[in-house]
Amino acid sequence: MEKIDIGRKILSENEKYAFENIMFLAERGKLCLNMISSPGSGKTTILARTISDLKDKIKIGVIEGDIQTDIDAERIRATEAPVVQINTEGACHLSAVQISDALKKLPVEDLDLILIENVGNLVCPSAFALGENGKIAVLSVAEGDDKPAKYPGIFAKSKVLLLNKIDLLDGGHVDFDIERAKTDASRLNKAIEIFPISAKTGEGMANWYDWLLESIQKT
Amino acid sequence: MEKIDIGRKILSENEKYAFENIMFLAERGKLCLNMISSPGSGKTTILARTISDLKDKIKIGVIEGDIQTDIDAERIRATEAPVVQINTEGACHLSAVQISDALKKLPVEDLDLILIENVGNLVCPSAFALGENGKIAVLSVAEGDDKPAKYPGIFAKSKVLLLNKIDLLDGGHVDFDIERAKTDASRLNKAIEIFPISAKTGEGMANWYDWLLESIQKT
Repeated sequence: MEKIDIGRKILSENEKYAFENIMFLAERGKLCLNMISSPGSGKTTILARTISDLKDKIKIGVIEGDIQTDIDAERIRATEAPVVQINTEGACHLSAVQISDALKKLPVEDLDLILIENVGNLVCPSAFALGENGKIAVLSVAEGDDKPAKYPGIFAKSKVLLLNKIDLLDGGHVDFDIERAKTDASRLNKAIEIFPISAKTGEGMANWYDWLLESIQKT
Repeated sequence: MEKIDIGRKILSENEKYAFENIMFLAERGKLCLNMISSPGSGKTTILARTISDLKDKIKIGVIEGDIQTDIDAERIRATEAPVVQINTEGACHLSAVQISDALKKLPVEDLDLILIENVGNLVCPSAFALGENGKIAVLSVAEGDDKPAKYPGIFAKSKVLLLNKIDLLDGGHVDFDIERAKTDASRLNKAIEIFPISAKTGEGMANWYDWLLESIQKT
């Protein structure tokens, strides 16, 4: 009996499109980042604030991945940034072929940065390359400081970890040991850059912006 | 060329074990609930408090699903409840065969209730029946009131929705419109029971306990 290695075959098809996307972006010298987190950690709020705060410096385009609805894309449209919505209709992660389509719909030549907001899921999206230059993990302090240890995949693979909602730490509304999260994430990934931020108040966002601007320069 | 419907085949294998688990539980008249949420919405804290608060009334056993680590099982062990840890080693949801194994390791005859804590993921676990009598969705108010609309699967399938961390609403630390979440969840699922709770302070937990005790009576 012949054995069919389905898992490998599906991944290769995704990898093929991911490679095409890498080439597409490299030829145009564009930076593309893939934001991954649980639902509700604040990805859309981070995106909207980043676009707004950096609007005089860089042009950002967004690819919004959601299972259903265009609630997030509407929030991005309010910033006047170009945005393409992908509805996965039940699938728990974006795949490279969807990004390939979305890149053709964005005015890529006019952009300095393309930010992909993946489906809210700390597990599955980390296993699927989209052709991005790097992954950005987002973890809100409301989710608990044990998450890097418990869900290591995304922390091991990301260039940046944004520890969001630090405004909730003031007054002790949530228990979250920033040093524990940093230590665990750095153990998984020595090169990871970790920025505690509040996309709500703006605290710490300047460090993230500096990293973004420097990364665009290098691309 | 012959087409092989792999998706269906995998699901059927899971369904076979799920059906065995249903029969195993029904023969013994035991209630088994499958808790599903994003990482960090407070499943383990809810479990630990429920076990502790109800310890003079019912005996609860726990099946802990995690990708890696036994951090959660350790927290449950501290309550002295019997617990079985399943590490999925990367998989984003529990499957029925794992529950079948775990049920054999628990002292089921001595228990009134078996609570399964699924892997932290609001998407994938809702698609895999484990043989449970019902699903319990958990959503923390820190995650945002748009989640029932954006991730409808789990809200459409659950018997109960626990809206956790309502202590964060006091003083306006997070923006979450309880009525919006209730309306959206009820639109997806007319029968869903919704209990706003704080597993940290204990607020609202009595409603959840009443529902649990009544459901055990009915099983």
